[in-house]
Amino acid sequence: MEIVSTNRSHGGVQGVYKHQSSETGTEMTFSVFVPDHAEGAKLPVLWYLSGLTCTHANVTEKGEFRAACAEHGVIFVAPDTSPRGDDVPDDEGYDFGKGAGFYVDATQEPWAKHFRMRSYIEKELPALIAEQFPADMERQGITGHSMGGHGALTIALRNPERFKSVSAFSPIVSPLACPWGDKALTGYIGPDRAAWREYDACALIEDGARVPDLLVDQGTADGFLADQLKTYLLSDVCEKAGQHAAIRMQDGYDHSYYFISTFMAEHVAWHAERLK
Amino acid sequence: MEIVSTNRSHGGVQGVYKHQSSETGTEMTFSVFVPDHAEGAKLPVLWYLSGLTCTHANVTEKGEFRAACAEHGVIFVAPDTSPRGDDVPDDEGYDFGKGAGFYVDATQEPWAKHFRMRSYIEKELPALIAEQFPADMERQGITGHSMGGHGALTIALRNPERFKSVSAFSPIVSPLACPWGDKALTGYIGPDRAAWREYDACALIEDGARVPDLLVDQGTADGFLADQLKTYLLSDVCEKAGQHAAIRMQDGYDHSYYFISTFMAEHVAWHAERLK
Repeated sequence: MEIVSTNRSHGGVQGVYKHQSSETGTEMTFSVFVPDHAEGAKLPVLWYLSGLTCTHANVTEKGEFRAACAEHGVIFVAPDTSPRGDDVPDDEGYDFGKGAGFYVDATQEPWAKHFRMRSYIEKELPALIAEQFPADMERQGITGHSMGGHGALTIALRNPERFKSVSAFSPIVSPLACPWGDKALTGYIGPDRAAWREYDACALIEDGARVPDLLVDQGTADGFLADQLKTYLLSDVCEKAGQHAAIRMQDGYDHSYYFISTFMAEHVAWHAERLK
Repeated sequence: MEIVSTNRSHGGVQGVYKHQSSETGTEMTFSVFVPDHAEGAKLPVLWYLSGLTCTHANVTEKGEFRAACAEHGVIFVAPDTSPRGDDVPDDEGYDFGKGAGFYVDATQEPWAKHFRMRSYIEKELPALIAEQFPADMERQGITGHSMGGHGALTIALRNPERFKSVSAFSPIVSPLACPWGDKALTGYIGPDRAAWREYDACALIEDGARVPDLLVDQGTADGFLADQLKTYLLSDVCEKAGQHAAIRMQDGYDHSYYFISTFMAEHVAWHAERLK
């Protein structure tokens, strides 16, 4: 692991790091905020998965998480959203290829070699975080935005033993039921829609997966709400399945970091409570 | 005035606006955050002047001021750092010309026509803010970063009747005593260094200007501290002049928004207390 930059902030250290990933076969960049802590202490970890077009940098610069993470003593990890580099295939659209890994392990060509963001987030990066940072891996939570909200929900639903808490900001709740999901999963996983169910939060809950609790914030003025995000599908499936969930429609908020940063401190506090 | 964008954030509205400035003879862009407030209420205003290379956008995205401004009911105004546009002369350096207006009214050619940031901040923009926003112009504070810290200090020292509070993050405290100041003021104002004194916080205090109180935060790991910022010059002159000032050296912090955002909430609260 190589240090790209470190900056003192809110009493802790905001770092950006890169390493050669064996899963994606590329160099991967990520950021980690480590609050001030007693020597030898191990802190809980909150993962944040970003949305379409983003890198680690968007939330690191605009997320307003550090004050809350410092207050609650939580490490904050922000990975990239896809493999990068000249060797990595791409698509003309912003919603597929680079910046749009969708947190899947692709099975289709030419994507299968590099687009392994599921295994990267589920296996490779946690091992690196455990090794390099004062992280208590018995206390992990996960959140994310939009495509990253989809990533957080599906990864948590598939790995209930790993995550004690999960939340999301304006998540894609069902790739099976929206154009972004249709394009991405057709491309990465292929036309067999049954194979998509492990990458669909609503389908996972229908199929029996559960998390202890769930917090979702969604802006009512979000331009993607009606056609892509469809929050009501998650509300419906949680109600039918008896999955406890606080799904909050936030009046007048859009899809931007102006929205995310507004509710970030609440999410950090909510996770910290469950990661005590 | 034209609306560039508005986003709901922290219960209020973060807007970006542009207008044709008669002072600079150019279109000028600025941002304003207006917290949620009772209909008809007038709120105090905190001005934030940005540093070299910045526009309104840096602090608007990375400054982490909105939570505190919402809590204390303070309007936050972030202007640009210079005129912009194809007609505006520029310099190859990042520290002169566009992005480097130094909050002066230039007297030298070819700068004199457009580089009127002093009059823009002191006269034109406040009139527009008073007209367009629920701003109580009897309750104004000012802060800024680096070149903008210089701007905040000098504008407050020259206009004690207007500003009830002034603070700064890692300010240039004496353009007379640093390479940035030397280049900029030679270029904008000319070689007569006596004419620079009204653009030098230390010289203004020496010459008798006073503010009610002063808060400065400066990182000890700031790469510009030794050669450009020279915080000790301000400490010395305040002590000699009996100017009350809290000048805090913050251990391990650098010149970035990771530093500014760490102490922003404290500055907002400090201003709010004085603008009650």
